Amino acid sequence: MTILAYGTSAGDQPLAQMQISRRDVGDHDVRIEIAYCGICHSDLHQARSEWAGTLYPCVPGHEIVGRVAAVGGHVARHKVGDLVGVGCIVDSCQHCAECDDGLENYCDGMIGTYNGPTADAPGHTLGGYSQAIVVHERYVLKITHPEDQLAAVAPLLCAGITTWSPLRHWGAGPGKKVGVVGIGGLGHMGLKLAHAMGAHVVAFTTSESKRDDAKALGADEVVVSRNRAEMAAHVKSFDFILNTVAAPHDLDAFLTLLKRDGTMALVGAPASPHPSPNVFNLIMKRRSLAGSMIGGIPETQEMLDFCAQHGIVSDIEMIRADGIEPAYERMIRGDVKYRFVMDIATMG
Amino acid sequence: MTILAYGTSAGDQPLAQMQISRRDVGDHDVRIEIAYCGICHSDLHQARSEWAGTLYPCVPGHEIVGRVAAVGGHVARHKVGDLVGVGCIVDSCQHCAECDDGLENYCDGMIGTYNGPTADAPGHTLGGYSQAIVVHERYVLKITHPEDQLAAVAPLLCAGITTWSPLRHWGAGPGKKVGVVGIGGLGHMGLKLAHAMGAHVVAFTTSESKRDDAKALGADEVVVSRNRAEMAAHVKSFDFILNTVAAPHDLDAFLTLLKRDGTMALVGAPASPHPSPNVFNLIMKRRSLAGSMIGGIPETQEMLDFCAQHGIVSDIEMIRADGIEPAYERMIRGDVKYRFVMDIATMG
Ligand SMILES: [Zn+2]
Ligand SMILES: [Zn+2]
Ligand SMILES: [Zn+2]
Ligand SMILES: [Zn+2]
Repeated sequence: MTILAYGTSAGDQPLAQMQISRRDVGDHDVRIEIAYCGICHSDLHQARSEWAGTLYPCVPGHEIVGRVAAVGGHVARHKVGDLVGVGCIVDSCQHCAECDDGLENYCDGMIGTYNGPTADAPGHTLGGYSQAIVVHERYVLKITHPEDQLAAVAPLLCAGITTWSPLRHWGAGPGKKVGVVGIGGLGHMGLKLAHAMGAHVVAFTTSESKRDDAKALGADEVVVSRNRAEMAAHVKSFDFILNTVAAPHDLDAFLTLLKRDGTMALVGAPASPHPSPNVFNLIMKRRSLAGSMIGGIPETQEMLDFCAQHGIVSDIEMIRADGIEPAYERMIRGDVKYRFVMDIATMG
Repeated sequence: MTILAYGTSAGDQPLAQMQISRRDVGDHDVRIEIAYCGICHSDLHQARSEWAGTLYPCVPGHEIVGRVAAVGGHVARHKVGDLVGVGCIVDSCQHCAECDDGLENYCDGMIGTYNGPTADAPGHTLGGYSQAIVVHERYVLKITHPEDQLAAVAPLLCAGITTWSPLRHWGAGPGKKVGVVGIGGLGHMGLKLAHAMGAHVVAFTTSESKRDDAKALGADEVVVSRNRAEMAAHVKSFDFILNTVAAPHDLDAFLTLLKRDGTMALVGAPASPHPSPNVFNLIMKRRSLAGSMIGGIPETQEMLDFCAQHGIVSDIEMIRADGIEPAYERMIRGDVKYRFVMDIATMG
């Protein structure tokens, strides 16, 4: 079946409307009519070939929400008309330790929602800047939020789970002091989620102007990280720090804020390396510097259910499909509160 | 009381015999006649002022074994004649979370066995290259090894606990694949301990010549880390890697060998930074880069008891007190199997 999509045929070409095809619905497949797709930094890096290995045509988008339009004969979990989502993962090997543990995100055979190998034309996966997608039922999430929140649910599928998974894994919750570094698409979700989990949440930002916003998003305290006195007041006090900043920066400034056995998890990989962290700061308090990548399917469902229960969605700005290039430019400048979402109905 | 010691009055002066005094035995103190003292790299760094803040006169030594010569009125744990040891810690605040958890090594008020602040003359602690030491009973360990192994027990007090603590903390044991990087004073203990804990142990060395030695020490497999094919065979397979190498090196070569949720713990701080580790390698498998510093008093006792039970001691070369400078030179070249121990009876 042929549908409309927004994509590009080269890294130096702007995204534009194009036609793509989706496979027929197999026994275990769900066909989704996409309503909205969130705009992630990864989309831009991939489309513009800032990461190695972009395959063209490139149709980005992995914060997908919509409605089930058809299901295969063996699909039990989803039915036509259901509100559903698809995140960064559309397939995995389904038989390794990671898949068995519901951590398909760490499966060596994980297939990304775009730019991943597939038998479907054109040989690599095409993402959610498109009218429809066909996905194996295992990777399709149920959405129980009210329908009028659907657009704002979209970013939960990447920004939400990318922050939820490490917060959960490293035990954010009541009695824990949790830091969130950076208040962008990821960070604003980190603040909302850590707050709802019951942790004492401290937001770190480089800009004085984000103080009030951070508090509104759920921060109990806000620290301007350029302010040494403010930083010093938090030395050796954090159980966990979620660091969402991909730009190279001084990790030691935050590692020293961890208490004994504390962990800082990085969820962004910088294009050029961070300054090498001081090993002494790790040794002194048995601290850990860790990484975390999106999340598994069961925990994505858990996160969505938690968010529905707690009334949590992303703060979004809606764009038309043909507004994607200006949106990318604003995203590069950090000029978005806090996630762009494409209204797929504007294609055509 | 005045006793003999080996120390130096300046960073550029060789160690020589000197007289020092020890405090009277207080209510909670144990006075130990030192029989042997292990020689740690830290001793050399401190004595030669390669670390900031060395106070002179400097008497190094924190791998101390000997016999109790006197106890204070309130000492219940130790009695005259007992074989005992003292490691890197002779005092701590005794009331913080770390002390309460038996992790005095992470107490902000931890006092090192040498170069730490004290009310005793000369105002800083003097270590185990000396005939006797007076230590609060809390920091004195029982030794249950046969007496003829006493000299070889000494290195357990630093090299032993420094490797035991992270191996235990990160769960080395049956069913776990554990790497030990570097086969020196620390690494040779790491191999023995990890093997006795029941882990599948892989030794990493830069020198082909250490293959047989590493197997004799307890390694199930030995990898020459310069050999790419050998390294590649272990990608994504380790639960835990204990990295004992303080010289700056490529951490990514080992981080990529960790499986999902694996940790590499560093126990040595390099004088100049390691090349900055690739964040991508942390993110991809939720790996952690951690640090660990010596160990707490209860776990040191646990380690000593375990070693006595399993017949584990350090491989040592005995030296006379006046042989300390040549021993330092050999230690710098890595020319020791695997720990020098000073026979304190050779002073005088
Ligand atoms: Zn994303
Ligand atoms: Zn798998
Ligand atoms: Zn030592
Ligand atoms: Zn303490």
